[in-house]
Amino acid sequence: MTTIKTIEWHGDSVRFLDQTLLPEREEYRTTNDYRRLIDAVKRMEIRGAPLIGIAAGYAAVLASLSVTNTGLAAHKKILGDAIREIGAARPTAVNLQWALGQIGMAISRAESVGELRQSIIAEAVALHEDDAARCLRIGKNGATLIEKPSAGLTHCNAGALATGGIGTALGVIFCAHDAGHISTVFVDETRPLLQGSRLTAWELRRAGVPATLITDNTAAFLMQQKRIDFIMVGADRIAANGDTANKIGTYNLAVLAAYHNIPLYVAAPTSTIDRSLAGGSLIPIEIRGEEEVTRGFGRLTAPEGFPVYAPAFDITPGNLITAIITDEGIVHPPYNFK
Amino acid sequence: MTTIKTIEWHGDSVRFLDQTLLPEREEYRTTNDYRRLIDAVKRMEIRGAPLIGIAAGYAAVLASLSVTNTGLAAHKKILGDAIREIGAARPTAVNLQWALGQIGMAISRAESVGELRQSIIAEAVALHEDDAARCLRIGKNGATLIEKPSAGLTHCNAGALATGGIGTALGVIFCAHDAGHISTVFVDETRPLLQGSRLTAWELRRAGVPATLITDNTAAFLMQQKRIDFIMVGADRIAANGDTANKIGTYNLAVLAAYHNIPLYVAAPTSTIDRSLAGGSLIPIEIRGEEEVTRGFGRLTAPEGFPVYAPAFDITPGNLITAIITDEGIVHPPYNFK
Repeated sequence: MTTIKTIEWHGDSVRFLDQTLLPEREEYRTTNDYRRLIDAVKRMEIRGAPLIGIAAGYAAVLASLSVTNTGLAAHKKILGDAIREIGAARPTAVNLQWALGQIGMAISRAESVGELRQSIIAEAVALHEDDAARCLRIGKNGATLIEKPSAGLTHCNAGALATGGIGTALGVIFCAHDAGHISTVFVDETRPLLQGSRLTAWELRRAGVPATLITDNTAAFLMQQKRIDFIMVGADRIAANGDTANKIGTYNLAVLAAYHNIPLYVAAPTSTIDRSLAGGSLIPIEIRGEEEVTRGFGRLTAPEGFPVYAPAFDITPGNLITAIITDEGIVHPPYNFK
Repeated sequence: MTTIKTIEWHGDSVRFLDQTLLPEREEYRTTNDYRRLIDAVKRMEIRGAPLIGIAAGYAAVLASLSVTNTGLAAHKKILGDAIREIGAARPTAVNLQWALGQIGMAISRAESVGELRQSIIAEAVALHEDDAARCLRIGKNGATLIEKPSAGLTHCNAGALATGGIGTALGVIFCAHDAGHISTVFVDETRPLLQGSRLTAWELRRAGVPATLITDNTAAFLMQQKRIDFIMVGADRIAANGDTANKIGTYNLAVLAAYHNIPLYVAAPTSTIDRSLAGGSLIPIEIRGEEEVTRGFGRLTAPEGFPVYAPAFDITPGNLITAIITDEGIVHPPYNFK
């Protein structure tokens, strides 16, 4: 199991691993400025749906700590504005909104500034610990699906770097590996930001899981060669009918999985399920800047100013997902989350 | 139509565009050393199945010009060795072997060193001109399939940069664009060497064809949104049953095309058809170096020494190809090239 301190609460500040520098450098940042934490989420120094939920909780705490000499009503108003700012950092992962909702409830109950601070600190820490516990349950639940030594494929990073614990999709892989049921893991590099080659490869090596890196467009060829037994991915938001927003390229894998008759599993905490949305078409899809595609490696790799379409996520219809693995158990289609 | 002098015969030397520097720099190299030309093919300064066939012809000419003071028999023997060396530059594209076969026939017929040189120069130039003419015929044939303004998707580069003429897949797109039948072209960036973003985007901009760049893993999402009407790709080798080796990722597109009911066309000169192979499993697939994935543009993007699987090509079964467009016409499945 991996033990990466991706994010930590230090009493009056937050320390986090700057994931944009991996795998070359493992550098940590410490801040007591909630706007710095928002920037870290926007720039993807902190990324991964569960982790940005945790970061949002700590950002709300830092915002509260920065407000001095006000009464409760003024404090709540300032904090409300800060929470709206935090909530706008990234649109697709629902965990951000969910975590802020939990914090919001703690705020509304408070009857003094002191009580408010105490309770949102407690809530933010609880969100973090709760996510770690959920990861473990997801990992154990999911590992029951990998019954014999198997070759997996994963996309993007849904590991310790994306959560408060051992990860979601990688959590399952770590647990299945502990059971001796992982022969190898193929890692999609995951363009444009290469979370697979930069982050997942780094985590798998640390954990001693045998793995091989591929470009995203090689996965189909491996499936044709019958070298992949299952696909395990995370999720940024799951609609009530099971439609799942996850890193761009996930829908591609789901179509390939259906064609090659390979199971595709989504692993995510129940906080990723957005029961308010009937289907995936209602999930907002973040469009990222074109320089992430055209200057991904520091060097310009397309003609200057060439038009780019760069959605960060896509939507996989629930009917292409073999099972959704949550901390509460394993669900099969047709999905109907209530 | 594009007018790029990708490769040119200068009487005693070859001038070629170094495609590894595009789109940042348009630099040409001149050499009279056949081994330099082989290196250019290996390093992919010269790439694209038809173009490496043309380069092979010129390399044979340069090899012949470098042999002095020998009789015909010794000359033929030295040239035979050089041709074997040229033929080993890259394994998958059959055009290389095909071109060397044509040159070999010219050599075998020669009855003096002077006649030999004259005839292989004539043959190499004819191969080049012949390819340009074939591209035009492919373009015209293929454009008949695009009957109304349509959005295309292409992968890798099968344009003027890959051939002696206007290109194969891009040749069709240029001709269809001339007919007013291209609304837009989506360009897969084509990892790992980014021939789509570096080369195809550059060609389409030069030709004034409206286009948008995407990462390879975005194509499926566009198809789900019904934003792609057809897929047009080139080929490196086509077996007798239509199974086609082309840039890694092509098979992925073929599965997506079948799932979304979108036509996928392969455009290639008949010299790309290898009638000696019954099926695609017999086509040798080149495995490239892992640094092309992990150090794409100077910066290390994966943990040092992480295992990589980097096939340069994949095999698309003939039954997933809607039609094969050649200089001789349009063929539909089931394919049976004789």
